[in-house]
Amino acid sequence: MAESFTFSADKAALLEPRLPPTVTPPGSGIFVTATFTTSLDSSLTLTPGVHTHLSGPESYAMTHYLRSRHAAILVGVSTLLADDPALNCRIAGAGLAQQPRPVVVDPHLRWTPRLTDKVLATCRRGAGRAPLVVTAAVASDIPEAASRVLKEHGGKYIQIAAKPTGPDGRMRFDWNDVFASLRSEGIASVMVEGGGKILNSLLDPAYHGSVDSVIVTIAPTWLGQGGVVVSPARVHDASGSPVAAARLKDVSWHPFGDDIVLCGKLQAPQ
Amino acid sequence: MAESFTFSADKAALLEPRLPPTVTPPGSGIFVTATFTTSLDSSLTLTPGVHTHLSGPESYAMTHYLRSRHAAILVGVSTLLADDPALNCRIAGAGLAQQPRPVVVDPHLRWTPRLTDKVLATCRRGAGRAPLVVTAAVASDIPEAASRVLKEHGGKYIQIAAKPTGPDGRMRFDWNDVFASLRSEGIASVMVEGGGKILNSLLDPAYHGSVDSVIVTIAPTWLGQGGVVVSPARVHDASGSPVAAARLKDVSWHPFGDDIVLCGKLQAPQ
Repeated sequence: MAESFTFSADKAALLEPRLPPTVTPPGSGIFVTATFTTSLDSSLTLTPGVHTHLSGPESYAMTHYLRSRHAAILVGVSTLLADDPALNCRIAGAGLAQQPRPVVVDPHLRWTPRLTDKVLATCRRGAGRAPLVVTAAVASDIPEAASRVLKEHGGKYIQIAAKPTGPDGRMRFDWNDVFASLRSEGIASVMVEGGGKILNSLLDPAYHGSVDSVIVTIAPTWLGQGGVVVSPARVHDASGSPVAAARLKDVSWHPFGDDIVLCGKLQAPQ
Repeated sequence: MAESFTFSADKAALLEPRLPPTVTPPGSGIFVTATFTTSLDSSLTLTPGVHTHLSGPESYAMTHYLRSRHAAILVGVSTLLADDPALNCRIAGAGLAQQPRPVVVDPHLRWTPRLTDKVLATCRRGAGRAPLVVTAAVASDIPEAASRVLKEHGGKYIQIAAKPTGPDGRMRFDWNDVFASLRSEGIASVMVEGGGKILNSLLDPAYHGSVDSVIVTIAPTWLGQGGVVVSPARVHDASGSPVAAARLKDVSWHPFGDDIVLCGKLQAPQ
C-alpha cells in the first residue's frame, strides 16, 4: 500500500487563486500549470535517470494535492523511464474522481507500455487513470501490442506532428499543439511536472501566454554541479544582448516546512 | 551623489539572529556570512563580467544594511574588475564607523589599483574604507606603485600561500587561511558576496564549519542557460554516488517585495 498524504485546508486556501476553476466554464481553453521542485541550484535531480528526494513532507503533500486539482498531469518520457512513477494522487481519501489523467510526452516511442509499469498497475487497482501518450510517430510505427496494452487500461496514443521550434529550430512539439490535443480530449486543466527538458522548453518566451500558473517549490539544498537543471534557453534582445529568459509577476512566496513555494505568472521578457 | 537606501527596523529585527554580535567577545574568531542574490536558475549574472540587476529595492537595501553590520565585505577580483564597485555601505546616514573594510581576493594580481577605481575614490571622499587585497604573489612580484596607491588610501596587500585544495586538488587559497589572516588584522566579521567561483568554493563541505550564516536572496526570474551560476562542485559519498553538496539547517524564509530572502546555516552532507 502506497503512503498517503494529508494537506491542510489553510494551505489549500493559499493556493486556490493559483489553480484552475473547479467548474470549467463552457468553451474555455485548457488551464496549464507548471509545477516542480528544485534545489537552490535549480536542479531537479542529482543525475539524469535518478530520482532525488528534495522536498519536505509538506511540499510533497502539496504536489499530491495539486494533482487532485488538475484533470491531467504531464511528464516527459525520460521521467517515466527514470522513475517508473505511479502518476496518481495519493492524498488520503482521494477517489477515482480526484485522479488526474497521466499524459506522457514520448515523441519517439521510447516507452513500451508493459503490465508491470507502475502507472498501469496503479490504474488496474483503481488508484489512478490510464495514460495518454503524445507521440510524433505515425500509426504504422506504433507497435500493436503497445497500443493494445494502453487501450485495455483505457489509455491511448495521441499523434501530433513535430515542428521546427525553439531558438535552435530543432524538430519539437509545439506546446500549443499538445495543449490543443488534450483540450480536444475533454481535458480542462493540466499540470506539467517535468523533467528538465520539458520544463525548459515550456519556459521559452513563445509559451508564456499559454501557461496560466507557475508553482515552484525550492528546497534549501545545493545539489552541486552536474544535476538536471531547470534553466530555459538563453534569450537575446533585438540588439543581440542576453536578457532574462522568463520573469514571474503576481508573485507570492509561501514557506512549507523548510521549503518555500513560489507562485506566479509568466510575463514576456522586457 | 550615489543613491542611498533605508531599511526598516522590522526587517532588521528579522535578520538580527543571523548576524555577527554587535560587540565581539574577546578571543572570538571571525564571523563569516555568505550572502548573494540569484535568479531561480541560480545565476548571479547573465554573463561573466557583466552586472545583472536582479533584486528589487527592498532586498537591495538589505545588502547595504548587511554591509553596515559586518567589519569587512569580501569579493573575488573578477567581480571587482567586472563591476568597478564602490564596495561601501549606502544606507542613509551611514558614517565611516558603519563602513565595512573591502577585501579583494586576487591571487595572481589581476587588479592594478588606480586612483580612478571607484573603491578608492569612495575611500578618498570618506564614504568607504580602503581595500585589503589578499594575494598569493610574493613581495617582490607586487609592483611598487600598486602597493603605494593602496597604502596611501590606508589599504594593503596580505600575502597567503595557495595550497592544493578542493576536489580537483588545484592550487587555491584555503578559506581558513584567508579568514585567519583577516582575523589577525582585527576583523571580527566578514560578509562574502561573490562572485561565482568564490561562492562555489566556499560552499564546499570542507568549509561548512567555517561559515556562520548564509543569507541568499532569490529573484523570481530565470536568467536562462549560460549565466554565472552558484552551484558548488559535485560531492560523492563513500560508495562514489553523488550526494547533495550542501544543505541548510535552521532555515527561515522572508519575502522582501517580489524576492525571497533565505537564511540558514550550512550542515555537512549526510
